[in-house]
Amino acid sequence: MPDLSKSRTRRRGGGREARLAVQQQTTGNEAVRAGLSGGRYKPLTEADQQAIHNAALTILERTGLSDHTPELLDLVLPKGALLNDHGRLCFPRALVEDLLAGAAREFYVYARGDREGKDDMHCTAESVYFANSGTAVTTFDAETMSYRPSTLRDVYDFTRLVDKLENIHMLGDTVLATDVPDDFTHDMNTLYAILAGSQKPACLTFRDRSHLPHAIRMFDLASGGEGSFMKKPSVIFGGCPVVSPLRFGRENLELMIDTAKLGLTVDLAVPPQAGATAPATLAGTLAQTVAETLACVVIVNLINPGCPVCFAAWPFITDLRSGSFTGGGGEQALIGAAAIQMGNFYGLPTSVGAGMTDAKVPDAQYGLEKALTFTLAAHAGANRLCEFGGMMGSLMGCSFESMVIDDEAGGMILRTLRGIEVSDETLGVDVIHQCAIDPGHFLGNPHTLSYMNTEYVYPQLMDRERTDTWENRGKKDLFQRAREKSDGILNSHFPNYLGAADAQVRDEFPIQIPSDDMLRPAARAKSS
Amino acid sequence: MPDLSKSRTRRRGGGREARLAVQQQTTGNEAVRAGLSGGRYKPLTEADQQAIHNAALTILERTGLSDHTPELLDLVLPKGALLNDHGRLCFPRALVEDLLAGAAREFYVYARGDREGKDDMHCTAESVYFANSGTAVTTFDAETMSYRPSTLRDVYDFTRLVDKLENIHMLGDTVLATDVPDDFTHDMNTLYAILAGSQKPACLTFRDRSHLPHAIRMFDLASGGEGSFMKKPSVIFGGCPVVSPLRFGRENLELMIDTAKLGLTVDLAVPPQAGATAPATLAGTLAQTVAETLACVVIVNLINPGCPVCFAAWPFITDLRSGSFTGGGGEQALIGAAAIQMGNFYGLPTSVGAGMTDAKVPDAQYGLEKALTFTLAAHAGANRLCEFGGMMGSLMGCSFESMVIDDEAGGMILRTLRGIEVSDETLGVDVIHQCAIDPGHFLGNPHTLSYMNTEYVYPQLMDRERTDTWENRGKKDLFQRAREKSDGILNSHFPNYLGAADAQVRDEFPIQIPSDDMLRPAARAKSS
Repeated sequence: MPDLSKSRTRRRGGGREARLAVQQQTTGNEAVRAGLSGGRYKPLTEADQQAIHNAALTILERTGLSDHTPELLDLVLPKGALLNDHGRLCFPRALVEDLLAGAAREFYVYARGDREGKDDMHCTAESVYFANSGTAVTTFDAETMSYRPSTLRDVYDFTRLVDKLENIHMLGDTVLATDVPDDFTHDMNTLYAILAGSQKPACLTFRDRSHLPHAIRMFDLASGGEGSFMKKPSVIFGGCPVVSPLRFGRENLELMIDTAKLGLTVDLAVPPQAGATAPATLAGTLAQTVAETLACVVIVNLINPGCPVCFAAWPFITDLRSGSFTGGGGEQALIGAAAIQMGNFYGLPTSVGAGMTDAKVPDAQYGLEKALTFTLAAHAGANRLCEFGGMMGSLMGCSFESMVIDDEAGGMILRTLRGIEVSDETLGVDVIHQCAIDPGHFLGNPHTLSYMNTEYVYPQLMDRERTDTWENRGKKDLFQRAREKSDGILNSHFPNYLGAADAQVRDEFPIQIPSDDMLRPAARAKSS
Repeated sequence: MPDLSKSRTRRRGGGREARLAVQQQTTGNEAVRAGLSGGRYKPLTEADQQAIHNAALTILERTGLSDHTPELLDLVLPKGALLNDHGRLCFPRALVEDLLAGAAREFYVYARGDREGKDDMHCTAESVYFANSGTAVTTFDAETMSYRPSTLRDVYDFTRLVDKLENIHMLGDTVLATDVPDDFTHDMNTLYAILAGSQKPACLTFRDRSHLPHAIRMFDLASGGEGSFMKKPSVIFGGCPVVSPLRFGRENLELMIDTAKLGLTVDLAVPPQAGATAPATLAGTLAQTVAETLACVVIVNLINPGCPVCFAAWPFITDLRSGSFTGGGGEQALIGAAAIQMGNFYGLPTSVGAGMTDAKVPDAQYGLEKALTFTLAAHAGANRLCEFGGMMGSLMGCSFESMVIDDEAGGMILRTLRGIEVSDETLGVDVIHQCAIDPGHFLGNPHTLSYMNTEYVYPQLMDRERTDTWENRGKKDLFQRAREKSDGILNSHFPNYLGAADAQVRDEFPIQIPSDDMLRPAARAKSS
């Protein structure tokens, strides 16, 4: 095949100073933004979507869900849900279709403080945002190359790191504070760590419904007084109300009921695992997860018609050789994208687990698996790509270095999502004519200068140097460069966005992060 | 967000022995194959495609191409091409449209020997194959983590490595034999190394048109005597007949003319570089590369109507900060996919450069950049993803370890490409009902056993172990595991598929690979 070595340009000089001047005029990234539209990749045909929809309705009408609670039955049986001969909670086809027709098509999650307005999330079909979550039980230590139990301090550290990463749009509890065993103390401290560390929108879960009013109290304190949170919610709550196949999980079901009653956005994740808790066929797992997710959408809308609820069908994959969950293969990327397409078929705001690599270090496997799932989910038009930043080891661990890498990957993915603007001006037929006829170089052309900041994402961590430059600079890989960046942020950025409210929050809640601890580097960050 | 830790399955036992028995019954990968259909990702709208097509026709009609040769003019001016006032070769709109209507929609590249029939390539719109190429001038040495000049021996080594990698479908000259300076000796030895190392289909270039008859003679010797190559060509030839913007490159133009005259498939690559040899706008570079590629398609069809020619628009990207080529960003993935969509708009067999990472080692950057470009090109329906295997450092180097990684990535990408089969059987509504009502485990279900080999790709190199297992086994990353695999093949697989023809080939051509050298490990493979 072609020898391209002569046709590639290295270090052409034309207009270099002018270009650098233009590039230096700008701060941040003008080429991409949060909420760009996806949906140009459609893994399922129209007929496929209809068949999956029909299968899901059959499952809801005939098979239904077990392990319901008396409270749930009281809420939904009078409104058209039924118990079948097996005592399972079923939803007639017409009821589901009616409720889907009236379901909320959008919701907002607001940023706090200085970010308000600028970094709010408008969640609606095919607008793509990158969201953290995962509740990993371990944190990766780059110094020892091992995983250690994650702590409350990690929750704060991950949050303040993400505060400086522009392509991760939503905070979440990427790690579990395993050093805080008491449920209430755990939930309130996780919330505190997130509110202190960043003002970006967030998604969270609680271990018990009773924690919800206390959480709202803390939000109110943090954002301007009583009632302020309900006016502009900056966090959405949720969990896994369904345990596959087709059973309810009590704690998260109760949280869903209370959230719906309050009219807050109901966040979910419905993660059946193909071959383990759902059929081995991707189509079968898809049908089941759509049914299980629709059950939640239906319940929320029976409790509070029109209350926003996320269509969060998160099908997972099993490696059938071992029976273990695997988050990184092509099957995961494909079924995740198909689940998103089903959510868009219903016109509902969606989310999906994407970026759940099985790699244990940020290596080539990590990059391949992350990019494959990110790319297909984003182009399928996932409203939120959850598990986005830092997750490794099949969701068992989270890494500061990987968080920084995923942020940079996010910019690349967003650039592909934005697509190509085609107009007379961008086609530039006259510019081409002029540069061909009277050979000038495109590099110094005014057309180039006027587009260089809006047409391209300029990576900070991806190496684009010459090979000899890379060798002379110590042959660093992306993991090493990312470590330098994450250490740099973790050693310098110690926010407490609770500000004046901090004292009262500490007065009312059992906060376990000492306030002076926020102003000094953690042990891990110092070590490097 | 949801705590998923309880819903993920690790090491569930149901039916494990039965599953392993089923899995071990099979050899190779039943879930994917070469030539799967892409095209479900469409970055351009219908209107965009029409606008780019119109812009390209305007460029061909008004601006035209310079640096033509008298031979070319004699071939095309009598048939409707024109010279404009600048003396540039132009193609009227109606002529281009007529020729496009009659252009070949498909071609075959045949495998040799035992692979014939089984591994032939049927190149037609949206059938996806992974093809090597790149002509890198250096080879990555995993021992020293540096790049050294690539050699003829490397050509043979890369070829015999790919011979054992099932997801790389087409051979190519991934590296340049820099130790063979004479043009004729170089081209004949490259050809020999490829014919000796594997019987897969191949794509190649030659430095001079005069080498073509000699090459055909060697093919004939290798594949059954005079005339056998022309009956079932196992290699396609090409180069870069256009030097952007809109100039001809003589050597490759002459090769194109001769190939077309022989009625052999004309392979191309037309690589304008956005911001350097084409406009900085992606739309502008797309319009120019479509025009330049159509010029080649038109010339081939004027010389030999209906002669197969590849629509090989390979737009490249410049990092405008430095002016250097960059192969790994989101812009490259996006514009490559859009170029493919334009080829599919014309219904022509396509190729595109994909996998041209800027990373210097197989690290996370490598994985991210490779997967992003592979995924979008494949889903856009690229007939051939060229530069597929092993390429690193912005096409400056090739790596054995990366070749092995890319093969495994290929299986993952193909799995996503295959999509989801939706039928009553795969939806499995009754299986779901049965497993929900009478709780059994899906793992041991006959439905699972019957689909486990056809529904999933089982990776060999991607780590899916538990974190503690990974730690206990030495914390290897994918680069290390890939090195073990590539060393294993390179230390054991020394084919010479020329077989009985070898003596005569050596008699007629100045072959520089000693025949006994093929049967012993190269220095680099021994070292590890």
